[in-house]
Amino acid sequence: MPVNQQIVLASRPQGAASADNFQLIEAPTPALQAGQVLVRHHYLSLDPYMRGRMNEGKSYASPQPLGEVMIGGTVGEVVESRSPRFAIGDPVVGMGGWQLYSVVDAEQPGALHKVDTRLVPLSAYLGAVGMPGVTAWHGLVRIIEPQAGQTVVVSAASGAVGSAVGALAKARGCRVVGIAGGPDKCDYVVKELGFDACIDYRQHADAASLSKALKAACPQGIDGHFENVGGMVLDAVMLRMNPFGRIAVCGMIAGYDGQSLPMAYPQLILVQRLKVQGFIVSEHMQDWPAALKELGQLVAGGQFRPRESIAQGLAAAPEAFLGLLKGHNFGKQLVKLV
Amino acid sequence: MPVNQQIVLASRPQGAASADNFQLIEAPTPALQAGQVLVRHHYLSLDPYMRGRMNEGKSYASPQPLGEVMIGGTVGEVVESRSPRFAIGDPVVGMGGWQLYSVVDAEQPGALHKVDTRLVPLSAYLGAVGMPGVTAWHGLVRIIEPQAGQTVVVSAASGAVGSAVGALAKARGCRVVGIAGGPDKCDYVVKELGFDACIDYRQHADAASLSKALKAACPQGIDGHFENVGGMVLDAVMLRMNPFGRIAVCGMIAGYDGQSLPMAYPQLILVQRLKVQGFIVSEHMQDWPAALKELGQLVAGGQFRPRESIAQGLAAAPEAFLGLLKGHNFGKQLVKLV
Repeated sequence: MPVNQQIVLASRPQGAASADNFQLIEAPTPALQAGQVLVRHHYLSLDPYMRGRMNEGKSYASPQPLGEVMIGGTVGEVVESRSPRFAIGDPVVGMGGWQLYSVVDAEQPGALHKVDTRLVPLSAYLGAVGMPGVTAWHGLVRIIEPQAGQTVVVSAASGAVGSAVGALAKARGCRVVGIAGGPDKCDYVVKELGFDACIDYRQHADAASLSKALKAACPQGIDGHFENVGGMVLDAVMLRMNPFGRIAVCGMIAGYDGQSLPMAYPQLILVQRLKVQGFIVSEHMQDWPAALKELGQLVAGGQFRPRESIAQGLAAAPEAFLGLLKGHNFGKQLVKLV
Repeated sequence: MPVNQQIVLASRPQGAASADNFQLIEAPTPALQAGQVLVRHHYLSLDPYMRGRMNEGKSYASPQPLGEVMIGGTVGEVVESRSPRFAIGDPVVGMGGWQLYSVVDAEQPGALHKVDTRLVPLSAYLGAVGMPGVTAWHGLVRIIEPQAGQTVVVSAASGAVGSAVGALAKARGCRVVGIAGGPDKCDYVVKELGFDACIDYRQHADAASLSKALKAACPQGIDGHFENVGGMVLDAVMLRMNPFGRIAVCGMIAGYDGQSLPMAYPQLILVQRLKVQGFIVSEHMQDWPAALKELGQLVAGGQFRPRESIAQGLAAAPEAFLGLLKGHNFGKQLVKLV
């Protein structure tokens, strides 16, 4: 059996997460039981939700246990199989975690999915045609419910979720305005992703200034907003929401380290009759087939080909993850493991 | 023609509203045109929304013009008629404003409704079986969508809207917990209105303390919340919301005078996958028939007979209104004009 490398959660962050919170260990891969397969991971996905799991506090999901392999989505190939459902060489997507290999109970529904890599690259199943893409689809289609001609704003627009929100909203005939950090990301959002405009929030010291820039970029106001950030960005957007606007709350990355993060103008919920709704994509499995179908078509057809930031080797995962939390990544953050 | 008395908006509040903002004037009632009726008002309704109309700023409705009769719901009787739709003596409900008489264009859809006073008292059409009741119905039935056995919390529970939320939620098999100001109101909410519990927010200096009291009163957590107040009350309730909880935002009376009123824990919208939605009852006319039917049955059957606070005479309206904003009223605030 191959020797496995794993990254475990060694300690919980006090404030910001740091490299000390992770530890790289080696372990043998156990022999397969009947119904199990061994998957060699090609890519590990790094995602903001992992930061929430590192805390002990109450959240929507159980905390990541100390000393256990960090949770994470993976794509790879089946290298051993004791399941009739998977053959050696099958390309698969699953939740293999921060490690080189995983043993998967292939009979467990949803544990492992075979994917088609003829028109869609394997890594895309962790991003555009994976959990981030479905996250974008659910928030946009089920909560924002945009109409053609309406204006949709997305924060963290250059990221894996934000870029997919943009592609899906453009496909629905919306004006799409991104918010991102820095001129390079804003250029990418407009020139490569095809958003109508993108605002660099770093150019704005407060919500009033950012809100003014939003007014210029959204002359018809904002009908739908996909929130990945929270804090000042959400305040600024709320000031420009049209009556009956919808805000899908997908992330509040600004608050992961435990800072207080008040919403400045909640009275706008009443004044503009807004709907503000939080969601977690894993609770809406019924949406995955339709979402993956549409996203797969957009990627296969070349209309949506977001960038990837790829770190090399498992040992690079902690630094890449910490960089993701600070916005250093450009598009979907992956770790290449082969 | 009878001489009319009217109260007009003389000036806009700087901060809190005061009696100076109103002026009582006399004016003749104009001669009726074809299709018009003259209504003698028996009761004027005083409602928190009127405070918002006194401001100049952007809100969901146009501001109340200076020098014009204050807007307001009224019930009364037709005393002259040049419309085939109304006869002298008909009991009617409309938006007659702060005055003794109004001339109504009876052909205008929705301007004036004949009501049945055999089982429901005339004044109830301004409260339990009127706009406040329908407000309660829409927020509860359309936004909170409570299931039997769930827990629903209502702020300003002794008021016209809050009491109706309680009656409608009890009729749906919910545990209903009120929040009100002072022991007398809390006694009334439990003993007369039939809520399961009521918390006196004045006994709590901050959201953490109020939240602890909510935990005791809501051992299964909170599934639905009807918000009439905002500020500390909303913060405290949010800390106890169950996953997939729904918050109908009907009022933020705490913010009418222009204070900043941040929401302390917006990240709970994500963590608990909450829906927070604002609404204005006048935009949901399609709900009125079903709501009025149910509310009328509850009042006629004696299951729901909320108290009224009745001020005597038009000149008493400003003080009664200012008292309402400070929570001095007990149940629906009316002004008796005959």
